[in-house]
Amino acid sequence: MSLPFFLEHLGVAVGALSAVLAARGLKIDLFGVLVLAVVSSFGGGSTRDLLIGDAPPQWMRSPEQLYSCLIVALAAFVVSRKLRPPRWGLEIADALALAFFTIVGTQKGLVFEFSMPVAVMLGVITGVAGGILRDVLLNRLPVVFQTQTYLYATAAFVGAALFCGVHERLPSSVALWGCVSVVFALRLAAIRFRIALPELRDGELP
Amino acid sequence: MSLPFFLEHLGVAVGALSAVLAARGLKIDLFGVLVLAVVSSFGGGSTRDLLIGDAPPQWMRSPEQLYSCLIVALAAFVVSRKLRPPRWGLEIADALALAFFTIVGTQKGLVFEFSMPVAVMLGVITGVAGGILRDVLLNRLPVVFQTQTYLYATAAFVGAALFCGVHERLPSSVALWGCVSVVFALRLAAIRFRIALPELRDGELP
Amino acid sequence: MSLPFFLEHLGVAVGALSAVLAARGLKIDLFGVLVLAVVSSFGGGSTRDLLIGDAPPQWMRSPEQLYSCLIVALAAFVVSRKLRPPRWGLEIADALALAFFTIVGTQKGLVFEFSMPVAVMLGVITGVAGGILRDVLLNRLPVVFQTQTYLYATAAFVGAALFCGVHERLPSSVALWGCVSVVFALRLAAIRFRIALPELRDGELP
Repeated sequence: MSLPFFLEHLGVAVGALSAVLAARGLKIDLFGVLVLAVVSSFGGGSTRDLLIGDAPPQWMRSPEQLYSCLIVALAAFVVSRKLRPPRWGLEIADALALAFFTIVGTQKGLVFEFSMPVAVMLGVITGVAGGILRDVLLNRLPVVFQTQTYLYATAAFVGAALFCGVHERLPSSVALWGCVSVVFALRLAAIRFRIALPELRDGELP
Repeated sequence: MSLPFFLEHLGVAVGALSAVLAARGLKIDLFGVLVLAVVSSFGGGSTRDLLIGDAPPQWMRSPEQLYSCLIVALAAFVVSRKLRPPRWGLEIADALALAFFTIVGTQKGLVFEFSMPVAVMLGVITGVAGGILRDVLLNRLPVVFQTQTYLYATAAFVGAALFCGVHERLPSSVALWGCVSVVFALRLAAIRFRIALPELRDGELP
Repeated sequence: MSLPFFLEHLGVAVGALSAVLAARGLKIDLFGVLVLAVVSSFGGGSTRDLLIGDAPPQWMRSPEQLYSCLIVALAAFVVSRKLRPPRWGLEIADALALAFFTIVGTQKGLVFEFSMPVAVMLGVITGVAGGILRDVLLNRLPVVFQTQTYLYATAAFVGAALFCGVHERLPSSVALWGCVSVVFALRLAAIRFRIALPELRDGELP
């Protein structure tokens, strides 16, 4: 079992977890929660695979990932009906999924021999598209665009660009885990210290 | 003309109808309604075909389905400006489209030799994605996720799983129509008797 | 450099511009604005390319278009923090992007030998899908469906159908620029003179 496969598998589990946590308070039924988990877990990778012309996506070729996703979502569904997980639970799960998916997506872009800017873009898409699709289905402004969201796509961008720079100079597993850690640490540090990019300040709609 | 083709054709017509009914009260103009009808009718099948790598989707290869969709939408647009169709009209049209698309999608997944869990997933996607895209474009929580929606994706799931179980043991047309009837009956019975899955009860947003 | 390529390049720039203008007042940070610009600029063409089975889309094969998009978005971001562009700025940029993308999309549909109705549909999709995706991500009713939007998809449809009719009879550049001008003029005239199609009048939700 290759390391990227293992990373993507972990990403699937935390993607499913983030979907269940995001659906709380919305009175969505069990099956809706499972649909959201599938979209969160596989939306980013599927968007990437469709764009690079590598259909069907990985999760359709070997259903183990699908089982992981559904089992984690089902367990989280049952548990979160009993006890109320803390807010930082969602944030850590989401930051982990962001970090995993971004670096795996960037690597796949490089393997398919796209130019570095496009590989970085594919990494960011893999990282953020699952969460965006989840929020679009929940009919709310995607987390990635909310004001109080600190360095979300930016953390993905930094990690993806770093991976492009170091993946030929470092051993594969060092580059992978190192860049995953950078995205994860950057995202959590940004939440903790409220680091943000400048925003569009104009207060009036055109 | 094969039976699946015929089913998909019927699904297209009721998909278009459901779009016109869903757009009522929103002051959307004629062309917007036609766009919504195309998205409702072909969104599910196109999502499935892109995922399995079978682009372009069927409706782009033979435009007869496109004509059906536009003619039904145009007729429904004209009629619904004159008289007010009852609420159960939308529910029956929608349940029919759900049933048709789910079973046709499952069958296509099996024809493309995906594993059963993936074929079931493709069936559910084919069944619900068109309506989800329609509701996302209308900027509202998709019907499939609303609390008062009874066994929507669940009915699709049951029918798709049943089709996987019986499609090799029964004559093709019996399996197709039987499973279409199961989805349709299950959905209508769930609406009538308010059968629902457990939901995420936690009342507070994280 | 071919004329369609040049048109698509221009469309990318105005697509990015329209995204920055649409995001004003929403407190979206720099990176979110860049994501919106990419979606606005490449969403329509990518949807078309995925549907016709021509992945990866053009912008992933040659990153110059990606650079144009990001540079224009960055410049517009900086400028719009200093001064407030007039409302007609958004409308003209949007009408230009609609016109460019629609005709380029229709031409690509004909080059791939789809039937005329499907080529027209692909043109309309290329023209409107980028803006729809942008608005879906911003969690609002897409401009194309809003009541006060005059002849949006309709202008695209007229231009696409006209291009199908004349592209074999006129020199390539005349047909291209002529039909781009028709879409642009029709859209601006519709805004100026408030020309609209009939809408679904029924005031009650079903």
